[in-house]
This record gives sequence, C-alpha cells and structure tokens, in this order.
Amino acid sequence: MQVNIERLKETLFTLSNFGYNEADKGIYRPGFSEADMAARRWLMALAESEGFNAHMDGAGNVLIRFGPDDQPAVAIGSHLDSVPAGGMFDGSLGVIAGLECLRVFKENDVELKYPICVIATSEEEGRFGGMFGAQALTGKLTLHDIYTMHDADGYPLAEAMQHCDLDPMQALSAALNPEDLKCFIELHIEQGPVLDQKGIQLGVVEGISGVFKWIVKLLGKADHAGTAPMEMRSDAFMGLADFAHEINRIIDEDGTEYSRITVGKAELKPGFAHTIAGEVDFTLVVRDMSQEVMEALSLACRKTLSAIARRHKLMFEYEQVSWLEPQHCSAPLVDFIDQQAQQMELNYQRMPSGAGHDCQFFTSITETGLIFIPSVNGVSHAPDEWSHWHDVEAGANLLLRCVEQKARTKL
Amino acid sequence: MQVNIERLKETLFTLSNFGYNEADKGIYRPGFSEADMAARRWLMALAESEGFNAHMDGAGNVLIRFGPDDQPAVAIGSHLDSVPAGGMFDGSLGVIAGLECLRVFKENDVELKYPICVIATSEEEGRFGGMFGAQALTGKLTLHDIYTMHDADGYPLAEAMQHCDLDPMQALSAALNPEDLKCFIELHIEQGPVLDQKGIQLGVVEGISGVFKWIVKLLGKADHAGTAPMEMRSDAFMGLADFAHEINRIIDEDGTEYSRITVGKAELKPGFAHTIAGEVDFTLVVRDMSQEVMEALSLACRKTLSAIARRHKLMFEYEQVSWLEPQHCSAPLVDFIDQQAQQMELNYQRMPSGAGHDCQFFTSITETGLIFIPSVNGVSHAPDEWSHWHDVEAGANLLLRCVEQKARTKL
Repeated sequence: MQVNIERLKETLFTLSNFGYNEADKGIYRPGFSEADMAARRWLMALAESEGFNAHMDGAGNVLIRFGPDDQPAVAIGSHLDSVPAGGMFDGSLGVIAGLECLRVFKENDVELKYPICVIATSEEEGRFGGMFGAQALTGKLTLHDIYTMHDADGYPLAEAMQHCDLDPMQALSAALNPEDLKCFIELHIEQGPVLDQKGIQLGVVEGISGVFKWIVKLLGKADHAGTAPMEMRSDAFMGLADFAHEINRIIDEDGTEYSRITVGKAELKPGFAHTIAGEVDFTLVVRDMSQEVMEALSLACRKTLSAIARRHKLMFEYEQVSWLEPQHCSAPLVDFIDQQAQQMELNYQRMPSGAGHDCQFFTSITETGLIFIPSVNGVSHAPDEWSHWHDVEAGANLLLRCVEQKARTKL
Repeated sequence: MQVNIERLKETLFTLSNFGYNEADKGIYRPGFSEADMAARRWLMALAESEGFNAHMDGAGNVLIRFGPDDQPAVAIGSHLDSVPAGGMFDGSLGVIAGLECLRVFKENDVELKYPICVIATSEEEGRFGGMFGAQALTGKLTLHDIYTMHDADGYPLAEAMQHCDLDPMQALSAALNPEDLKCFIELHIEQGPVLDQKGIQLGVVEGISGVFKWIVKLLGKADHAGTAPMEMRSDAFMGLADFAHEINRIIDEDGTEYSRITVGKAELKPGFAHTIAGEVDFTLVVRDMSQEVMEALSLACRKTLSAIARRHKLMFEYEQVSWLEPQHCSAPLVDFIDQQAQQMELNYQRMPSGAGHDCQFFTSITETGLIFIPSVNGVSHAPDEWSHWHDVEAGANLLLRCVEQKARTKL
C-alpha cells in the first residue's frame, strides 16, 4: 500500500487557502481565528463526506476516527493553526497525511484491529501560549490556564474561544483517557537545515531537546569612547563578545553534537557610537537532549561569564527564565519506526528536534513517535517554507506503514 | 604670582547657578538657550565692573580684553555652554581661570607687552553641531552652515540666534585676523580617567586624536535557534563577537598606546531569544594620534571583518560615516608649556585628547596649546563631574605662568 500523493497534494493545497494572504503569500491561521475555525469546519465536513467520523472537542481539536470502537486508538496528527505569514506544510502536513492514511485503509478495505484517530490539534503555534489542544488532550490544562491565557494584545483566550462558539470550560473535558490510546505518531517538517543539507529524506526523531533560557546582565561603566584608554575600560559589550567567542569551546568541552547555544537578543546601553557600553542585557538559550549535559553547559556558561566579568571589571547577573527538560520519544516506538524505515529502504537518520511539537505532551500518556521530512533550506514560519513532494510522499508512506502495523497487529 | 583659588572658586560657583537644575543637580546651559545667554551677559557685566573690556561678537562669543591694543593677543579660554545635565567644570573652568589670570595681572600691575584676550566660546557642546563659536572665530563657518544647522528637534540655529537678539549673518563677521593672535591656550578638565587613575596633576596635551566612524552591517540567516546546528548557522551576532574579540590584537599589531577602538551601538535583528540573529548593525569608532596609524587600523579592521564574514558565511558591508584627521597642538607651544610645568616642578605628563575641544579649530590660525586637569573617576557630562580644587589651582597657575611669559616677552 502507498499513499496517493496527488490526492494528498490537492487536499493540502485546498487547506492552504484558509487564511492565505495574497500580498505576502503567507498563511494567517492563528489559533481560534476565523480562518483557523473555517479550516477545522472544512476538515470535519470533508472527513464526514468521505465516510469518517469527525467531531470537534471542547478545546477546538478536530478528531477523525476510523475503525473499531472497543480498542485503544492509534493516534496520528499535528496542528492546523499557523503562525502569522506561515507556510503550507507546518502542522498541516501531519493532519492531511493522517487523513490520507485513513483514505488508503478505507479504499483498500484494510481490516483494522485497533481504530485510527487523526487529530488536528488547536493553537499549537503560541498565539495564547501554544500547544493548547495537545495540553487539553493529555490532561495538562488547568482552569487557571484557561482564565489567564491571552494573546500578545491582551485579548483573553476565553473570549476568543467564546467568539468561536466554544465554551472555554469544555476544554477541560477534552482530556483523553490514556487507556484509550495505543500510541501517538506525528509527521512534521523538520523546520531546520539538517536533512536538506545532508540530502537525507527522513528523520526518525528521538525526542525534543531540553532548553533553558537566561536573561543575562553585564554591568560596567559608560565612559567616553575617546577619553577612556582600552585598559581602563569596563566595557560591558566586550564582556559579551568574549563570552560569545567561548561558546564553541564550551560545547566542545561540555556539550554534544545536539547542543545549541544562542545569543539572539542583546541590548547595549546607552547604545551610542561614542560611548562605551556601560551595560549589556542579553538572552542566552541553551539546548541539549540530555538533562545532565544541560546542567554541565549551565555550569560552564556561569563559570565563563564569571571569569570574563572579573577580567573586564564587570558585574554579572543572570535570571533563569525557564528550564524545560528534554522530552524523549518512546524508545520502543522510535526503534519500531526506525525498523519500518529500514525495511522500506528509506534514506533516513535518527535525530533530535530542536523545536517543540504537540507530541511532546503525549509522551506522558502514551507511546510517542515523531517523523521529520526535509525543509528546503531549513526555512519555516515564513511564506517560502517548502518541502519537496517526493519527500512528502516518503514521509507519508512511512507514516502509513507504521500506522498499518500498529492498527493491524498487537505490536 | 599665583591665582587666588578662593576667588576663582567663588566665581565658578556663581557661574554654575546659570541653568542649574535642583532636581538632578545638573547644569542645563545648551548653546543659545536663555541660561547660556544669561551667563554670557553676567560674565560681560562682571568683567566690565572689574575694569576689563568685554563684548559679544556676532557668533555669541564673549571676548574680554586687557592690555595694549596694537599687538597680537595671547588668547585663552574655553566654552561657556554645557550639555544637558552637565557639570560645573566642563568649559567653564577655562573661561573663569582665564578671567582669574586677568585679575592677577591687573592687581599686580603687570606690564603687558601683548594684550590678553579671554574668550568664552559659544555652542561648543553640539546642540547645533558644536564648536560653533570656535569655527566662527577661526573663519571656518560658512553661510550654508548658518542656514542649515538645527538642533535635535529640528529647531534652526538661525531662529535660536534671533531669539537671543543675535543676527545670524553677523556670525560670519566674528572671524579673527590671524595676525591679531599670538597664540591660543585652553585649560580644560580631562573628561577621562587617565590623570585621576595615575595620580598625575596635569596633562600637557599634544593634540586631539583623529577619529573615524563606520556603520557596519553583517548579514547572515535568521534561523530557528533550536533547529539549526551550530555548524550550519550564519549567525551575524557571532561574527560581531569574533570581531570584537580581535580588537585588542588589532591594536597590538597596528595601533599605539593612543589607539581606541569602540563598538558602542549594536542592533541584532530580528532580536528574538529563540532566533539566530540574521543581521547585526553596529558602529565602529577608531581613534589615534597618527593619520598613518588610523589608516593601518582601518585596513586591519577591514581585513579582520572580511575574514570573519567568510568564516561565518556572512555578507559584510560598511559605510565610513566620518574621518577626522588628528589635530596636533603646535609643537613649540606644547614644548613651551611642558617647560613651564617642569620649572614649576608640577606632576604632569604629555598626552593626547580623545575628545574634541575648541582649540582644535585655532590650530589653523595660530599656535595652540591645551592643558588638562584630572576629572575625578574620569566622569564628565554628568552632574557628578568633579575636579579637586588643588588640581584646579595647579592648572590655573600653569596657565597663568604660560600667559605671563607669552604676554610679557617675545617668546
């Protein structure tokens, strides 16, 4: 059995019309927007018209079921919402490839021992905080969340849901019973350059990197750039530059090939060309797949920054804004997907995911797996996000095979 | 002969009331403001009341003359305007110390062969571009300048002058005939940390550093900080950090002890914690006392930035916004001041000035000298700018001796 790539492609193109903006060619389908809800209604109607059972739960997730009622389900899917000016593959691919699996099983009259449930999750991209639907499905959502979440403009989630004819309280009823699930498998674009640059068609993801974020402040003295000799300066920016220069050494010494350290934001104060920066505030974001490695990197960053601060006569302060542990996909399911890819003689590699995905919430209630296909030039969250159709086809076929095995056997 | 430090102190304190702000203890006397003009009128009235000739020229400079009319003048002075929230020594010291010299000569009935002219220049600090009065006196001002200069709010210089009952056109008449000048000597606070940190009482300035300013752009790729492995990034910020790390090497290889290289302003774009900086725009300000060294530093910066850009897969662009040549004080006058300081057994050193001063415009029309006294902690352009009175006294006495020699002899 194979997916019908032309049908998959056509459905994906149809979906991409929801929220499409002619001016910048981007898709605007933020969670609980008109376009997002219209896409969900379209998806349900489409599934129903093809003979599947579809409904929307209290959190706005769309669930499409096929197969027996009395067994735990093989869940597959991803999110249907997009970032502003997003692309047509991010999230959508996993949902439509899931639907394509149902279509293939149905047209081939495949006898399923376990039901399949395609899930189109709600608000993954972060308009109100992100992964809202996945948190609701996995029982992680709280009443407090529902009544405090709001978008960047301060518009409350609860109001946005009511505007979509959803009762916010019902989001708490979306929680699935873990006993009703056999596993959860997500197909997604990589959103990074690794597969594309290496010419590898598929990634079997081992987990989502852990990440911590610091806000660091280096305090020196804002002297006149003309009158202060180099050796008498307390130049906060030079402290940051020396630290950034040490990042590769820190990874070489204490990290792994999965480590990422990034300074993405930095503010020099007062920020005048002729004034030495008396202060610099910057963010430090560190990732790795191992909690222990994250701890070692944290220690190394602290020691390096302390030493540099002493050398440049600076004060060093930092605040740890967040620490998210690595989320490992289920080892047996990762091995299972790996075996299927091997048997299909696909060109694949195992890898971590540096970005978060819905599946990370499913790890706590069921076996979870994640499959990547290449993003051309690593681009995502932009109108020129693209993936080649032969890669889409390979990814969907791997998903199809995994789901078939899971739904037809006790594996 | 010695200056009367108590009298000098009292006069300086009286002047500091003009534009004084109780809230932040700063002085607000920007060029052609009410407070600035009030201080000028006060100074003229004070000088007249003590028997000196005082007048304001067409550019708002106050000139106080003493001695014979038929000989070139020994000019001394500095500016009377201040930055917003400035201190009480910057500029004012040189004017009031000049007046104190006149007082000493007058009360001691010193016979002058050459007249002395104390000049309180206008708009040195840059409200309308800076060193306006000095440019007018030295014939550097143009009609075009007068009708295009404006402050940061767009308020035209010409209007501000008219508001002060000054005819802007008359600023062009302020130009002095070089034949009417014997020399120009300025006493000023260092506005840097060198003398204070080294415990040296006086600086005999050899010249004003040359300076060039670049606006540099490094262009890379704004990838997701989680999905892009370290070695696949084009991180513009890491390019800047590597360059900043090379600054000391560049000075060691191509600079002098007078070289200063500063990155005071940098903007990371898009500037998000979880996004690799795809672009960084920063300023690079380089100073030295030698034009050749400046050229060598410029070449070294260009080569270093080019190499780093290649290493990080970045595009490197820069615009040279300005290139001001070093302004050397007159070597014979510098040696003369040096000798006087030596004979007075003062604790002094020769040094460059990293900041600009009025005297730099006088170098083109007469012999020019500049004397520094220490700034406590190197602070200036701030309410807590301070200089110790014993240093003020030493500086004023050195000025007095230099002026006496110049005004009484052919030296």
